[in-house]
Amino acid sequence: MTTKMHQNNNRVVLTAPLDGNPRPEDFKTISEPIPEPGEGEMLIRHIYLSLDPYQRSMIAGRHGAAGPLGEGEMPGGEIVGQVVQSRHSDFTDGEYVRHFGGWQEYSLSDGTQTFAVDPEQAPLSTYVGVLGMPGLTAYASMIELADVQAGQTVLVSAAHGPVGSMVGQIAMRKGARAIGIAGSDEKCRLVVDELGFSACINYKDGHYPGSLEDALPDGADIYHDNVGGDMLAEALSVLKNYGTVILCGLISQYNDPSQAVGLSLASVILKRAVLKGLVVYDFEDRRQEFFDMMAPWIKDGTIKYLEDRVDGLEHAGSQFTRLMSGQNVGKALVVIGHESL
Amino acid sequence: MTTKMHQNNNRVVLTAPLDGNPRPEDFKTISEPIPEPGEGEMLIRHIYLSLDPYQRSMIAGRHGAAGPLGEGEMPGGEIVGQVVQSRHSDFTDGEYVRHFGGWQEYSLSDGTQTFAVDPEQAPLSTYVGVLGMPGLTAYASMIELADVQAGQTVLVSAAHGPVGSMVGQIAMRKGARAIGIAGSDEKCRLVVDELGFSACINYKDGHYPGSLEDALPDGADIYHDNVGGDMLAEALSVLKNYGTVILCGLISQYNDPSQAVGLSLASVILKRAVLKGLVVYDFEDRRQEFFDMMAPWIKDGTIKYLEDRVDGLEHAGSQFTRLMSGQNVGKALVVIGHESL
Repeated sequence: MTTKMHQNNNRVVLTAPLDGNPRPEDFKTISEPIPEPGEGEMLIRHIYLSLDPYQRSMIAGRHGAAGPLGEGEMPGGEIVGQVVQSRHSDFTDGEYVRHFGGWQEYSLSDGTQTFAVDPEQAPLSTYVGVLGMPGLTAYASMIELADVQAGQTVLVSAAHGPVGSMVGQIAMRKGARAIGIAGSDEKCRLVVDELGFSACINYKDGHYPGSLEDALPDGADIYHDNVGGDMLAEALSVLKNYGTVILCGLISQYNDPSQAVGLSLASVILKRAVLKGLVVYDFEDRRQEFFDMMAPWIKDGTIKYLEDRVDGLEHAGSQFTRLMSGQNVGKALVVIGHESL
Repeated sequence: MTTKMHQNNNRVVLTAPLDGNPRPEDFKTISEPIPEPGEGEMLIRHIYLSLDPYQRSMIAGRHGAAGPLGEGEMPGGEIVGQVVQSRHSDFTDGEYVRHFGGWQEYSLSDGTQTFAVDPEQAPLSTYVGVLGMPGLTAYASMIELADVQAGQTVLVSAAHGPVGSMVGQIAMRKGARAIGIAGSDEKCRLVVDELGFSACINYKDGHYPGSLEDALPDGADIYHDNVGGDMLAEALSVLKNYGTVILCGLISQYNDPSQAVGLSLASVILKRAVLKGLVVYDFEDRRQEFFDMMAPWIKDGTIKYLEDRVDGLEHAGSQFTRLMSGQNVGKALVVIGHESL
């Protein structure tokens, strides 16, 4: 297969270790030679880079044993790309893959964390969005942990985001009612008009958190928490007794864990609440089951998704800054290359 | 029936609203005439008064709509007593009852929260202890919420107390291993030697919390939390992934809720922990089932219980002070009268 390649592999790296909220100037683009795949490896051309809040923790060294990233180091991230030169027996040139390739234009893979994806079954970008980790997270939350039932009411934080938007829509497919929380009237409008939630509460307007009680006079059976902090405390106040809380993310403290607001145990006890911590990696073995349920809904438009795209790898830092300050509307993506060459 | 009665009903009341840790001088004994039962009522002579940490919250007005108790007001509490004059069709003179009668020698009842108890089935004092609310709490924790299984390891805070001691012993009856936490070497000795726990950790010695990890190299499947605060955080550090935490009490903050230490959500998520709030009142309808399981074990000595008795109603305040500062060893009781007249 003949492909037109750039001469170089552009990569986005840190200008300094991150401190608090990321800023565009914390990132710069550098250029390196495109690596050569060895025997058993393949070269992947990146098309879509997924930006996700968990990457903030990874940069800070809070995932696993690696320390914080320093100057000149590249953040990790999932991409959808195309195999341009395969010396791996399971992958062929031209094949599309999902891969943990990082913030760059090309990467090598020996097959680890690399999975073939099919553009006929769903749009390529959805493999890192509604059909990727965010979608699997939502599936794990509603189907596996919360076991949502018809007639229930599900309250969803960050409802415009890739996880929250799927949490609500999966709940609705199961006959439940979804109420969103988001950070602007515009986000709330999309959550209701585009995604079909019953209501959406703007937590930045002056009526919050009273507006939570207005929207949920009978309370919520389930709260999907992506945020932690005060928002969790406020959501607990409208949780029904014996309600379930899925603890899935801590957006409120990714930038600064020292700001962590603890959870009041008294309210958990008085509500007889059940709280469950969710780590999506536990559900890798459900990915096919999840995909088989979700892909047809994506293809026929039953399930809607929002994307917040920016064109050009050099904008990854500013796009990540927007994400971590809550300015994104939908799944944050960087478009790095064309789908076809 | 002829009974020898005191002329008066002694009652223990507050000398001032409680502030922080109770002290003996916060309580005084007053004397009032013994009330006369009206039609449909009965007069109950109190034998055992149960002292429990929840009474601290009741005195502070944190249970239900009533405000804090003021000077001259009597704390509530469960008692075991004997009906001495019944004008109630369901109760006869001489019958023993469990009743929410308060810190006094006599009370009236119209049957509300009054239940016959049988001294043939179990010692009378156990009806407010291992067979009463503390026992039911332990049953709800292990059987209903945690669903303890053979081979599991259960970590139990306040293991010498009436709830903790039953939590561990019920877990052991179900084939699990119980590890206690208590506040002195003497308490720990009782927990291991008398109650049969596999081990007990003194959280006041210099090896804690490292001693938790030594005692639980493979972690705990279940943590029964009566304490909240730092102890919960430390217990979470030895909880196995996917472990269960039963949130049952907040001894660490009953005296001063403003000292509440919040729970770190990050650790809950990383452990994939399941946290469940327990309110024992929800399990009233399981009381018979619980009693039928437990009473034979009490009677044949399979299940051991510790009591911390003091003689004389006038010592209720100092006994409560001991309880709330963690000096009790076993179920805190005040012996108010003889079992038989």
